[in-house]
Order: sequence, then structure tokens, then C-alpha cells
Amino acid sequence: MGAGPALNRLQAAMSETAQAVETMLEHLLPSGNGSQSPVPEAPVPEAPVPEARVYEAMRYACLGGGKRLRPFLVVAGADMYGVPRDRALRAGAAVELVHCYSLVHDDLPAMDDDELRRGRPTTHIRFDEATAVLAGDGLLTLAFEVLADPATHDDPAIRCALITALARAAGAQGMVGGQMFDLAAEDRALDLDEISRLQNLKTGQLFNYSCAAGAILGGASKEELDALTLYSQDLGLAFQIADDLLDIEGNEYEVGKKVGKDADAGKATFVSILGVEAARNKATQLVEQASSHLEFYSERADLLRDVARFVIERRT
Amino acid sequence: MGAGPALNRLQAAMSETAQAVETMLEHLLPSGNGSQSPVPEAPVPEAPVPEARVYEAMRYACLGGGKRLRPFLVVAGADMYGVPRDRALRAGAAVELVHCYSLVHDDLPAMDDDELRRGRPTTHIRFDEATAVLAGDGLLTLAFEVLADPATHDDPAIRCALITALARAAGAQGMVGGQMFDLAAEDRALDLDEISRLQNLKTGQLFNYSCAAGAILGGASKEELDALTLYSQDLGLAFQIADDLLDIEGNEYEVGKKVGKDADAGKATFVSILGVEAARNKATQLVEQASSHLEFYSERADLLRDVARFVIERRT
Repeated sequence: MGAGPALNRLQAAMSETAQAVETMLEHLLPSGNGSQSPVPEAPVPEAPVPEARVYEAMRYACLGGGKRLRPFLVVAGADMYGVPRDRALRAGAAVELVHCYSLVHDDLPAMDDDELRRGRPTTHIRFDEATAVLAGDGLLTLAFEVLADPATHDDPAIRCALITALARAAGAQGMVGGQMFDLAAEDRALDLDEISRLQNLKTGQLFNYSCAAGAILGGASKEELDALTLYSQDLGLAFQIADDLLDIEGNEYEVGKKVGKDADAGKATFVSILGVEAARNKATQLVEQASSHLEFYSERADLLRDVARFVIERRT
Repeated sequence: MGAGPALNRLQAAMSETAQAVETMLEHLLPSGNGSQSPVPEAPVPEAPVPEARVYEAMRYACLGGGKRLRPFLVVAGADMYGVPRDRALRAGAAVELVHCYSLVHDDLPAMDDDELRRGRPTTHIRFDEATAVLAGDGLLTLAFEVLADPATHDDPAIRCALITALARAAGAQGMVGGQMFDLAAEDRALDLDEISRLQNLKTGQLFNYSCAAGAILGGASKEELDALTLYSQDLGLAFQIADDLLDIEGNEYEVGKKVGKDADAGKATFVSILGVEAARNKATQLVEQASSHLEFYSERADLLRDVARFVIERRT
């Protein structure tokens, strides 16, 4: 299939999944009256509970935006194993909850101090800092509650495997460690190996979970999970290089967040070290390499191959 | 048994458990060289990884202090079911990780803005705000990783039950919601029902997990779990009243944190509404009521009865 039809197919699939993820998040997030699973026969309280402000902030941080790339990887992986869509969407919603919590906390004044995200005020700007800290905490906690629920899979061993994978990817030896690394390295120029390690922690680990989760739900073998991890590592790096290129070449209106921040901060990135052309070539090479790890799946993995191409062609 | 010997027995048991919890946390928390489970034959890296700062902050926030009351409740409950000590300590360490994360985030300038905790500078004072946010995030995530590990129980259904219980207790409809409620209510006086609801969310829910976790590990029946929940609700409220009394009567040096804050802030508490004497009587009555829910366990629950008395007699 040529690039045009493949891209159309991918965009249709991504937009369908994004809609389904939105519906799932809408269902999972607590709402104003404090009831997570509304019982039809119970009267709806007239006034929201006082803590409803944190529900609102959680919903604001998660709903109505984003490419939902991580849940899409979960769903695409799950489809290769014939996993029921609802289970894939729950495992996908969990990683999106973690991704959104990390954005809320990373945007805080004490961290990256960002005021714009997905073209809207960041959560601490729209609400306040305390509410943003709590909303992030609530989202992270909810991710694990969602995975532990029997609706995610009837085998608790599989639910525990997902929880372990997400906790490792998100924790101090994964994403949280990556953010710490990033802050700790602000005053010195990193070399290429250090940047690769930083990015693997900061964004790569959540991609690892996303690429593995569908296969875990489908009862994949160790070898299959290893192949998906290799795919996701290349994908994650390509994604990051594309992000660095967007930070230089992107348009703030299209990208939906402040651009040029890395260059302004004198931060070493793949692009500042390699240059634009070599960085673009490296990303293309990583995408080919990513796809090569999926040979075992033959055409069942076409969507994952399309995603890899998409992450370096995206404009936002 | 009279109050004296009972208190001695309790203090010995609490101090032994606190030591074992410390050792378990020491083992579970990541350390400087980035290796969570050091492999003896692997060479130890010469320099710590750049993100080791967040490991340090996590260790600072968790190690070397605290009564470890919540893990003690887990262990005391587990002992009633003959649960192996190591499992109980893991389930106890998980709630302590969550408790410590909540203290780190609650102490932040945007939240309660506290500089002293357990007689030491709070985490954001000792490190910085960004590191404190990340340390809290890392601790919360680690709690779920610990529970999902087969070392916590070989039945993954029991691990999932613990994860669900902890996530609900800690999340937006539990502790996080309680903190939001507290912040949202800062500018108005709450009545007694509202304060009870606030405290149930803010501190009671983690007590519920703590009192149930040992029984969950021991395969308790629904009725037994319900009895323990009733016990823990009375215990949690008695604990909070005792906390309010300490805030008025306590000595900053002994208590290890700033006292008199609630009164200075004009905050309604059990004590400000009921008065000191009635509050003390209420706490005593709650302690008796808490113990009465444990009749089913007869003398197996003696330690839990002792704890209930302890929480209103403590000086710190």
C-alpha cells in the first residue's frame, strides 16, 4: 500500500480510537456529584461535593484533546491479538491518565513553568497550583484503579502484569526519573548517549508500556513482548527527534504549546547536536528499524508500522 | 490486662514493627546507583545516575521517622490471620509510601506550606519544590508496584484486591479528595458533619485500607472486612480528634511539626466546635466503640484494641 492510502487508513483508525478513548475517559473520571459509577435509581445530589473541584481539574486535564497516541498503540497492539476493544481501551485509558498527570505536574511553575498546553491554559493556570498537584495525584492513582478492575481482564495475573509494567514505566526508574534527569541536567550540555537515555526514561518508558499492553492482554509470549519493546524503543526515539524538530520548525498555533523553548534555554537536543538534516535522517532510519522488529507479525502489524511513519511526519 | 502492661505490650510491638517497616522501605526504595534490586555480581556504577536526586528525596521523605501507625495496623490485622510477616510488611510499606507521598505534596508551598515535619525540614525545603513534586509522584507509583509484585502474595486476585483498596482510599474519591475539600473549605467554617466527612476522606480512608489489608491477605470474609471497616472508621475519627487536641495542647518540639496552625487559621475542628473536654470524651467513646466491632475476633484482636487506646493517649 502506498503512503497516501496508508496515511488515510491510519488517520481514520486514530480518529476512531481517539473518540473511543474520550468516551472511556469520560466514563472513568469522577464527575461533579462525586459518583464514579452513577446508579440510575439513586437521586443525583443537588450540589456537587466540595472536593468536586479536583474532579473538574482532572477532567480538564484529560478530556477534549490530544492525539491519544499512547492509547492508540495499546489498541493497535491489542488488535493483533483479537483482544476485546473495551479491555484495550481501559489499558489505553490508564496510560493516557498517566500521560496527562505527568503533563499537569511538569507544567507547574516549579517544574517547566508552562502556561499553554494543547492550545489551552495549563491546569494550574485554569485552576490553581494546589488543585493541579492534587489533580495529577488523582489521575495517577486512578490509572492503577482502572487496571486492577476485573473489567480490564478477567485474569488477575494479567491485570497485575499491566500494573507492574505501568508502574515501572511511570515511576522513579522510568518517567519520573526522566523528568528529574531533565531538571538536574539543565545547567550542562548532554551528549548524544545521555540524551538518548534521558528520552528513554522521560518518554520512551510509557511508549514501552503502550506497545506491550495489548500483547499482555492477549497473552503474548516473552519473545513477542521483546520484539514489541525493540519496536517501541525505536519508535520512542523517533518520536522525540520529531518533537525536537517541531520545537524548532513548528508553529505555536499548530503545535498548541510554546515552541522554541529548548533553543531559548540553550538545551542540547538531538537536533542541536546532529543538525536538522542528520536528525531527520536519523528519525527516518529509526522508523525503518522499528518496523523491522515486527516481521514476525507480518501484515497484522501494518498499523503499528504506519504509526511509526506518522510520528515523524506529524505537524503537531 | 491493665492499661500499663497493655501499653507496654503495644509499644514493644509497635517499635518492633516500625523497625521491620524501616528495613522493608530501605529495601524497596531505589538508591543512588539506580538499581532497585542490586545484583551482587554486577559492578556498582562509580557515579550515581543524574536522576538519583529523586531517589534521595524519596528516601528522605520515607526513612528514619514516623510512628508507622498505618503499617502497624496492617501487620496487626495480618497477624490475626497468620499471614507471613514479609507479606504484611509489603502491604504495610505500600500504605506508608502513600502516606509519605501525601505529606510531601501537602507540605508544598502551594498547599499547606509547611517547613517542618517530624522535626526535620520538609522535603521541598531540604531539596526543592520540583524534586518534592517528583518524589511524591515516585512514592505513589512505587506503592502500586510493590503491591502488584508476587512477593506480596502468590494469588494475583489478592494483589489486585489490595491495589483496588489502596487506589480507592488514596484517590480523588478518598485522600486526594479530602485534601481538596480541606483547601476548598478554607474560607468557611464547617459544621460537625462536614468535618467528619472531610476527615474520613483525608485520613480515614487510608486507615480503612490499613485495617483491611491484613485481612485481605488472609482471605477474610466480607463480614470480617465489614467489621474491620467499622473499627477503622471509629479509629480514624478518634485519631483525628487526638490530632486536633495535640494541635492545641501539644509542644512543637515533641510533636515535631508546627502546632496551633488550625487555631491561627481560624479553622473549625472537632475541638473548636465541641470544646476540649467534650472532644476528649468523644474520642474516648469512639475508641470503645471501635473495639466493640472486633468482638468476633475475641483476644486475637487485643493489639488492635490497644492501638485504638494508644491513638488518643499519644503525645506526638
